[in-house]
Amino acid sequence: MAKLKNDLFLRTLNGQQVERAPVWLMRQAGRILPQYRAIRGSLSGFKELLARTDLAAEVTVQPVDELGVDAAIIFSDILVIPECMGFDYDMVEKRGPLFSKTIQSASDVQQARSGKAAAEELEYVFDAIRRTKVLLDDRVPLIGFSGAPWTLLAYMVEGSGSKTFSKAKKFLYQEEKLAHQLLSSITDTIIEYLKLKIENGVNAIQIFDSWAGILTPDLYNTFALPYIHQICEAINTVPTIVFAKGAWFSFDGLAKLPCNALGVDWNIDPLWAKERAQGKILQGNLDPCMLYAPEEEIEAKTKKMIQQFGQSHIANLGHGVYPDTPLNAVKTFVKTVKNSNYTS
Amino acid sequence: MAKLKNDLFLRTLNGQQVERAPVWLMRQAGRILPQYRAIRGSLSGFKELLARTDLAAEVTVQPVDELGVDAAIIFSDILVIPECMGFDYDMVEKRGPLFSKTIQSASDVQQARSGKAAAEELEYVFDAIRRTKVLLDDRVPLIGFSGAPWTLLAYMVEGSGSKTFSKAKKFLYQEEKLAHQLLSSITDTIIEYLKLKIENGVNAIQIFDSWAGILTPDLYNTFALPYIHQICEAINTVPTIVFAKGAWFSFDGLAKLPCNALGVDWNIDPLWAKERAQGKILQGNLDPCMLYAPEEEIEAKTKKMIQQFGQSHIANLGHGVYPDTPLNAVKTFVKTVKNSNYTS
Repeated sequence: MAKLKNDLFLRTLNGQQVERAPVWLMRQAGRILPQYRAIRGSLSGFKELLARTDLAAEVTVQPVDELGVDAAIIFSDILVIPECMGFDYDMVEKRGPLFSKTIQSASDVQQARSGKAAAEELEYVFDAIRRTKVLLDDRVPLIGFSGAPWTLLAYMVEGSGSKTFSKAKKFLYQEEKLAHQLLSSITDTIIEYLKLKIENGVNAIQIFDSWAGILTPDLYNTFALPYIHQICEAINTVPTIVFAKGAWFSFDGLAKLPCNALGVDWNIDPLWAKERAQGKILQGNLDPCMLYAPEEEIEAKTKKMIQQFGQSHIANLGHGVYPDTPLNAVKTFVKTVKNSNYTS
Repeated sequence: MAKLKNDLFLRTLNGQQVERAPVWLMRQAGRILPQYRAIRGSLSGFKELLARTDLAAEVTVQPVDELGVDAAIIFSDILVIPECMGFDYDMVEKRGPLFSKTIQSASDVQQARSGKAAAEELEYVFDAIRRTKVLLDDRVPLIGFSGAPWTLLAYMVEGSGSKTFSKAKKFLYQEEKLAHQLLSSITDTIIEYLKLKIENGVNAIQIFDSWAGILTPDLYNTFALPYIHQICEAINTVPTIVFAKGAWFSFDGLAKLPCNALGVDWNIDPLWAKERAQGKILQGNLDPCMLYAPEEEIEAKTKKMIQQFGQSHIANLGHGVYPDTPLNAVKTFVKTVKNSNYTS
């Protein structure tokens, strides 16, 4: 592996003392950037952008050029895993994903493609990674990601986004054994997929458990944590970050995972997280809506966050940046982090 | 006040040792009951049912007759407060509330009706309460309720439901002073409204802070808690319950409110809540989706919850019951609580 010009993000993930917190934003490759909107506007839809690997690579690199972030994250979607397992979806404007079929029965689970056979279907993602690596030219590390097994099961059973994901939760309560079978298949697929991502050049992995927060502590410990554990164990060549949004109630369990870092959402006080981190690096956690505040306020709150987390921290928002966030606010956030040296 | 035949709910709220936990369900007067669906199906919409006070009273009493719950809760809506302040809404099927105008400026805030003048517009709610009291005939207590100031501001600024309520949060970050003015007006209106509810016969009050969970700890402590505190202080003739869904991060602050009880959602472990309750009665917290489980499982999980909370507990779900919950599952839940004597 070529030496990265800026390896601050990786040094932090590896537990080294660093000069300042590295910074990137979840959904940084997206609508906040005029360059992204120009490309996206020329295409028929979100999924066309995933398929056009030259453009996917281009939008991945845009925030590095425009914002000066310390890491890029491959432009992709967590739902490529259900898709490669045989569950196609459309991304419907202003509504979100919509699946043409869902998991209803044991035969649906058995018929789902899984493992390496499924992951290899995602050649277009690996191609986008290779193209991105060329464009990045070792300036900053590239993050690869996957949805967590529970979150992906939730979509595969529910068939769309949902406020309650009550069909998916009903599945856990009514079909416990089948749920575990499906979670195992998803987990096997994720592991093969992430290994292929790493082979193709990503320098770190983030697992997004976006719907962690709608489970009870019991359900999370039964149906979510053990599968994330398997993934973290299998991915041992690059650092891993687990972001289980809303799962404060399982923070102690998350902190015991064999991963390098934990994502922290904006509901969590930084000091609360630090006390419970058990040596994990923490990533987060400014409220995305804070970026609507006046500039002085963004600066002040960003500095406060940096100071509260201290070392072993990757600066980020507590969730993906909202599409209508002013570009200047994002720049103020990034600049404030980059100007906040620990030693100063 | 006439003596209630079943005052278990009030005795529990008043801190007395009781023979078993009282039980009711949030949204018990609703689609889970065939009797409700029959009445609702004969009307043009949800708001017609609010206006038809004879029918609103009837559906309020239905769960007492059908389920044998220990308390009734007046059939109404948290959005009657924005409405009486001059902000009309429609309840759009499968989409939720939609306001015809929203709070945008200082003049919008100033022009909003507030306090007693606003609350007195809600005579139809008070009429429904009086009619309900006649139908209940002192069998069980009647709960009156209101949305909390932050949750109501969220709808008045956002204009509809939202996954992020990012417009409402933007308002807090950009218009702090105006937000406090609006919260004060809403609070004054809620207090007058609840006093009139009590004059008309309700025996207890619940405050629903449904969107508590999307704020940061800082925002919650600044824009939500102080106003709930004012309401609890003003309502001192009947017991009060505060349910701030998702606000685990401010649990210590909630436990210091001058109220009798705290609602607990299903993310929270009962033992975690008990440790931090500071003498408050706790209400909750079975996962609404648990009622999709097989009967034996519902029984087992309900008994476990009863045992974990122990005395000073009102059995309920951790959120409103979902409309497609099987009636038999609800009955199993209620029956299991009623059969679980503390002394046995």
